[in-house]
Amino acid sequence: MTFALPAAYRFAAVAAGIKPSVNKLDVSLVVSDVPAVAAGVYTTNKVFAAPVALDRSLTPGEGFRAVVMNSGNANACTGERGLSDAKEMARLAAATCGAEPNQALVLSTGVIGVFIPMDRVAAGIQAAAAKLESSQEMLVAAAQGMMTTDTVHKLAGRSIELSFGPVRVLGMAKGAAMIAPNMGTMLGLVLTDAPLSPSLGQDLLSAAVVDTFNCIRVDGHMSTNDTVLLLANGAALSQGSAKQNGQSLTGSDLAAFRTALHEVCAELAKAIPADGEGATHLVTIDVTGCRTRADAHKIAKSVAESPLVKTALAGADPNWGRIVSAVGYAGVDFDPLDLELTLNGYLLYRRGAPVPFDAAVVSKSIRDNRDTSIVLEQTAGAAAVRFWTTDLTAEYVRLNADYTT
Amino acid sequence: MTFALPAAYRFAAVAAGIKPSVNKLDVSLVVSDVPAVAAGVYTTNKVFAAPVALDRSLTPGEGFRAVVMNSGNANACTGERGLSDAKEMARLAAATCGAEPNQALVLSTGVIGVFIPMDRVAAGIQAAAAKLESSQEMLVAAAQGMMTTDTVHKLAGRSIELSFGPVRVLGMAKGAAMIAPNMGTMLGLVLTDAPLSPSLGQDLLSAAVVDTFNCIRVDGHMSTNDTVLLLANGAALSQGSAKQNGQSLTGSDLAAFRTALHEVCAELAKAIPADGEGATHLVTIDVTGCRTRADAHKIAKSVAESPLVKTALAGADPNWGRIVSAVGYAGVDFDPLDLELTLNGYLLYRRGAPVPFDAAVVSKSIRDNRDTSIVLEQTAGAAAVRFWTTDLTAEYVRLNADYTT
Repeated sequence: MTFALPAAYRFAAVAAGIKPSVNKLDVSLVVSDVPAVAAGVYTTNKVFAAPVALDRSLTPGEGFRAVVMNSGNANACTGERGLSDAKEMARLAAATCGAEPNQALVLSTGVIGVFIPMDRVAAGIQAAAAKLESSQEMLVAAAQGMMTTDTVHKLAGRSIELSFGPVRVLGMAKGAAMIAPNMGTMLGLVLTDAPLSPSLGQDLLSAAVVDTFNCIRVDGHMSTNDTVLLLANGAALSQGSAKQNGQSLTGSDLAAFRTALHEVCAELAKAIPADGEGATHLVTIDVTGCRTRADAHKIAKSVAESPLVKTALAGADPNWGRIVSAVGYAGVDFDPLDLELTLNGYLLYRRGAPVPFDAAVVSKSIRDNRDTSIVLEQTAGAAAVRFWTTDLTAEYVRLNADYTT
Repeated sequence: MTFALPAAYRFAAVAAGIKPSVNKLDVSLVVSDVPAVAAGVYTTNKVFAAPVALDRSLTPGEGFRAVVMNSGNANACTGERGLSDAKEMARLAAATCGAEPNQALVLSTGVIGVFIPMDRVAAGIQAAAAKLESSQEMLVAAAQGMMTTDTVHKLAGRSIELSFGPVRVLGMAKGAAMIAPNMGTMLGLVLTDAPLSPSLGQDLLSAAVVDTFNCIRVDGHMSTNDTVLLLANGAALSQGSAKQNGQSLTGSDLAAFRTALHEVCAELAKAIPADGEGATHLVTIDVTGCRTRADAHKIAKSVAESPLVKTALAGADPNWGRIVSAVGYAGVDFDPLDLELTLNGYLLYRRGAPVPFDAAVVSKSIRDNRDTSIVLEQTAGAAAVRFWTTDLTAEYVRLNADYTT
């Protein structure tokens, strides 16, 4: 698969030895050849990593030239030294393109509570700078450099035709565990050559995250490092950068861009539980007919986080009582008689009582399909949410119980 | 181990064929020979089982003569028919001692969403009635009859000397998964021959549950059936039942009883995660120095429910970043610099930064001890909570992923 590359961005990644495994890409560099507007959405964890502190202090804003990313070390719970390391990473990344320290952003993921090896990081950034190019190969490398236990890199892109010409929206993300974004460790970076003001960029990104990255769960453990960044360099305008022209999208251009951004975020978000650690099912949960979106979100989250629901799905067990009871403790005030559950198209529960069904048939449907659908319908209102999660397998436990320190 | 039996209670259990396995005890009967006061604390799940609906409508109250318990079927999500089945169970149990239907209470646990086989239940109650006696053997049988995936039966007792003579407090409980009481499926039955009024019985039980059964987690999935009942028949008074005399504990008698009740509830509560499905560690989490008890409870719950913390403990991995980050997303407003983490006596994290420690030594300490201690200290206030939970092993997943329907 090839992606339309947004204009005036270059990519690179190197194996800098931050990950314990030999020759794994772990430092990625993205440079915008012209100054870009940047917006960010971050973890709401009270214990947040140094790069989160740094990026949050700079976004939304403009004039950005570089994003440096590393895997293998989260630079979280590392105190003052961690923050100064993150700032040094930004300074080194900015210097590769002649920019100032506050013109670069930092994304880190990996082990918590270990100081990041700055000598390796610095050498990695230098080596990456020498490889920067606008190519499919280096785009994929950059997406691979942010992977931890991910088994596949995650890229999504859209190309749209606006009034002034074509615009590209290209996103990369990582994440396979510690996934409970509100914003999980998930990292995302969305690049566009559209022109956006900082405030519009922030509004668009914040809105897109609500229904995408904030609607996924692997294990319900919220990370210290979750970050999604949007860079918009305006290079799609023939006149040059958005900053120079003070231009920003409006009208039908804005509507088309919003849709493309939402689609890219949704595709990346869904790719995370699809690659969830040990997962054998990607589960889509649709909750409809609630009084408020907050109610629908609580119900979906409660089902998505239940180990009993997740193990049942792993075992292809249509044990719907676990799903209905997870709805019951979601913290939403509702009438238990006003609830209908459909699993992979089979109606299992309606108005407080079981519906006769062929357990063997439903079990086979779960076993034979990696994609699983849970639909929970109420009639209390019009609010709805779509959520994506995984099953819970012995492999997830094995991956996370292995002694790693 | 033998338990002091409270006066005027008799016990029995039989294998009635409700569980699929042959000759497993699954119907238990407890009879008080004199009318007893009863109090109850129930699941807060909006989807609650028929026996919960029935017992909740009757407690607190007086005049109770019998409690019938079954395992193998939760009688939950079974609609109107389920409620009428629960009422019929109460009627049959009451009839064994010549009492009225509303003088008996019902506890059920097992699979959700399947109608309970009333013919087997009815035959079981009859058979149990013929075996009722005040003996250690039948007490143990009654505690076994309420077991589902429990590997051991759970009994705890205290005998205290009050102003008028000796009083006994004896509790039984079950639970190994679907454990997130607020009230998780845990069932508990505490019997005493002390005299209590219904309102005092309810106040004492409600208070005891807060720091005991509500402070345990196995998997964070709240059951539809959680119930703790307290029966007090006053038979320790030489004059006869509490009801006849209108007497209730006061002063130093009340204080001594409150302590004994709390100890019995705490011992039973802790026995549940100790027997958690697949668990290889019983984890005690002490959270201290919080502004409010609610804050301390949220932090303990967040750590206790994190699959990443639980799998790390299963693997003897002193991956303390997972613990600290779970504190961070507990939903409590606190200063991350005001947090200290001690694991099995080893200080690992202090004031926002790692503390050097020997990972091999801490790992060995986790591996060699089934009991694990996590202490999280803040200095924001004086509130504290003690919480008990399990690790998360591949065996838990296996037990719950096996196709059972």
